[in-house]
Amino acid sequence: MADRHEVSEAGAESLAVPSLRWGELPEGPVVVLLDQTRLPAEEVELVCTDVPALVRAIQTLAVRGAPLLGIAGAYGVALAAARGFDVEEAADALANARPTAVNLGYGVRRATEAYRRAVAGGADAQGAAAATLVEARAVHAEDVEASARMAEHGLELLGELLPGGGHRILTHCNTGALVSGGEGTALAVVLAAHRAGELRRLWVDETRPLLQGARLTAYEAARAGMAYTVLADGAAGSLFAAGEVDAVFIGADRIAADGAVANKIGSYPLAVLARHHHVPFVVVAPTSTVDLETVDGAGIEVEQRPGHEVTEFSLPHLLGTGAAAGAGIPVAPLGSLAYNPAFDVTPAELVTAIVTEAGVVSPVNRERLADVCSASRWRKSRSGNGMMAE
Amino acid sequence: MADRHEVSEAGAESLAVPSLRWGELPEGPVVVLLDQTRLPAEEVELVCTDVPALVRAIQTLAVRGAPLLGIAGAYGVALAAARGFDVEEAADALANARPTAVNLGYGVRRATEAYRRAVAGGADAQGAAAATLVEARAVHAEDVEASARMAEHGLELLGELLPGGGHRILTHCNTGALVSGGEGTALAVVLAAHRAGELRRLWVDETRPLLQGARLTAYEAARAGMAYTVLADGAAGSLFAAGEVDAVFIGADRIAADGAVANKIGSYPLAVLARHHHVPFVVVAPTSTVDLETVDGAGIEVEQRPGHEVTEFSLPHLLGTGAAAGAGIPVAPLGSLAYNPAFDVTPAELVTAIVTEAGVVSPVNRERLADVCSASRWRKSRSGNGMMAE
Repeated sequence: MADRHEVSEAGAESLAVPSLRWGELPEGPVVVLLDQTRLPAEEVELVCTDVPALVRAIQTLAVRGAPLLGIAGAYGVALAAARGFDVEEAADALANARPTAVNLGYGVRRATEAYRRAVAGGADAQGAAAATLVEARAVHAEDVEASARMAEHGLELLGELLPGGGHRILTHCNTGALVSGGEGTALAVVLAAHRAGELRRLWVDETRPLLQGARLTAYEAARAGMAYTVLADGAAGSLFAAGEVDAVFIGADRIAADGAVANKIGSYPLAVLARHHHVPFVVVAPTSTVDLETVDGAGIEVEQRPGHEVTEFSLPHLLGTGAAAGAGIPVAPLGSLAYNPAFDVTPAELVTAIVTEAGVVSPVNRERLADVCSASRWRKSRSGNGMMAE
Repeated sequence: MADRHEVSEAGAESLAVPSLRWGELPEGPVVVLLDQTRLPAEEVELVCTDVPALVRAIQTLAVRGAPLLGIAGAYGVALAAARGFDVEEAADALANARPTAVNLGYGVRRATEAYRRAVAGGADAQGAAAATLVEARAVHAEDVEASARMAEHGLELLGELLPGGGHRILTHCNTGALVSGGEGTALAVVLAAHRAGELRRLWVDETRPLLQGARLTAYEAARAGMAYTVLADGAAGSLFAAGEVDAVFIGADRIAADGAVANKIGSYPLAVLARHHHVPFVVVAPTSTVDLETVDGAGIEVEQRPGHEVTEFSLPHLLGTGAAAGAGIPVAPLGSLAYNPAFDVTPAELVTAIVTEAGVVSPVNRERLADVCSASRWRKSRSGNGMMAE
């Protein structure tokens, strides 16, 4: 089950409330989430005391964003172990909560393997739970670290692509502190540029149907004091045509071995526009988002979400909560069909660069992507944090 | 002033309520509009007894769509003449109600010139008013005729571009009976294809921010019994990539002499996607939409609309009514800036064809466009309906 409680107002520069944390309450361990469906109107935490509550939070997008889903998945397994639930069953339910985000499965696998190793090594239930939590915390800490590295590499790339600063960057969906243990992926780069005094404007696609841009990216940009402007997704074309976009920076939910990038629906049209206007199109994602087992973009399963997310307008706190059809305000005639894929796939040839914590992949192709991933995995396996080298 | 009254439910094949009509009430003549801001939830007529009410209806998009604005402008001048208001002042107010739609100025000019001719010819106030109304009715009738011709030419073009039928057509905004005295522009072609059994599916871009696709095109498609599917504007890219779009058909608000097309924001990204995927991109508009005095696309003034149309969600009956900021449900943080141009401009080289009532312009260039326009104007001036040959 999940309790909700409101969170007090806080400072401006960074997120007041961490997007996700592990909690030890007198009545037992919990996973605490900032409920992203209620932003920006309210900051409400969701306290998950069991795995079904966490699965539901993932499916309803209360917690979302590729890296954060990895952390949520790992803590979810740790929660099952700590509370004495069936760990394998919990891992299955978590890993299958959403099909496209590869990080979710990655986080679940990391924690589950730690649990299995502990059990195989003779640990009792308490010991195995402790080992699982250590691994979940490692996944979390690595993401914080990865976020900082991506910001660094991304800022350097920005300086190379566009010398002189004064950048006008277009982004889509939300890729900041809300999706990460740290400051996020693409928005972490934007924030680094902002801190370096090099950001002239952040163009924020509203990102229909669930408005993660207007609701969440604008919220983070406002808190950080950036100059930002929200626009309907279809208005990006005019900005390109007017020469008002210097670069596009987006995140990713899954990157295939050939460099094809699955990201929030509406990303691919931006890639085509960017190519048409000779504007760099940059993807920022940790190597945990790269799925070398998916050979190419065609192999990426794209989640189809309910049509009523398009045909009805839901109040912010209902957005993405999985509320039944009819719970919102109808905008299309009753009975209208809707096409509502959550993601689209951008082929590697339209991607200028993929910025990871282990370095920048550019040009984007199978060999360079594999190189960066193996560099990253080699470092992780050497650092002894228990990660398997695949 | 404008009264509102609800309209009874009606049949399925065509619009129950004409989008605009001239009325003769005991208390005087009126222009009656179907209030498009309240669709699809309610069918409410707006009865305009004076010019300011009509100007407000135009500005708030209660009446909208390039051809219909021409008719509204002409009847507005006729209303001023019939009610004894200052005709020149009324013409100015009407012509300037929205800057981009060239048809508005065209309709106003036609009616005003008829009024001036009558006065110059010695007509009394009643006679001049009658002459003005005759001209407004001619503008209306020509649009009905133009709509039928565009449907005919468009269907023929569709057969040439895509032999064999089974078309999957993507459209943007609303271009049907709601924008016209007849069945519209692009949607009139789609309707003709549907009646001919050649339409497999109509993909309906929801068309943010004011959702004319989800609200109005879906409403017309449902009434006509078409197979249609609504999508967020950003989802069109996935449809192209999946090979699910055979052609794009859209309308236009102004076409420059070089063939550049101003149309609802979000049209240009579709043109770029269509080119990237080798899909025909077809514009359907009467020759009255062509503005030979605007040399090229750069010369088209694009209307900038209030930011709160993007940063707030308004209930359907508030959409586009010019309600003040704060009247809707905020989706972005308070104080967020928004970029909200009403239109974008697609250069001629991305347009496969322009379908007019006088024939199809393809390839689209200055010479062919001028040819079709002069053919059309020659016919009109010969038919003796009072149109000036420029």
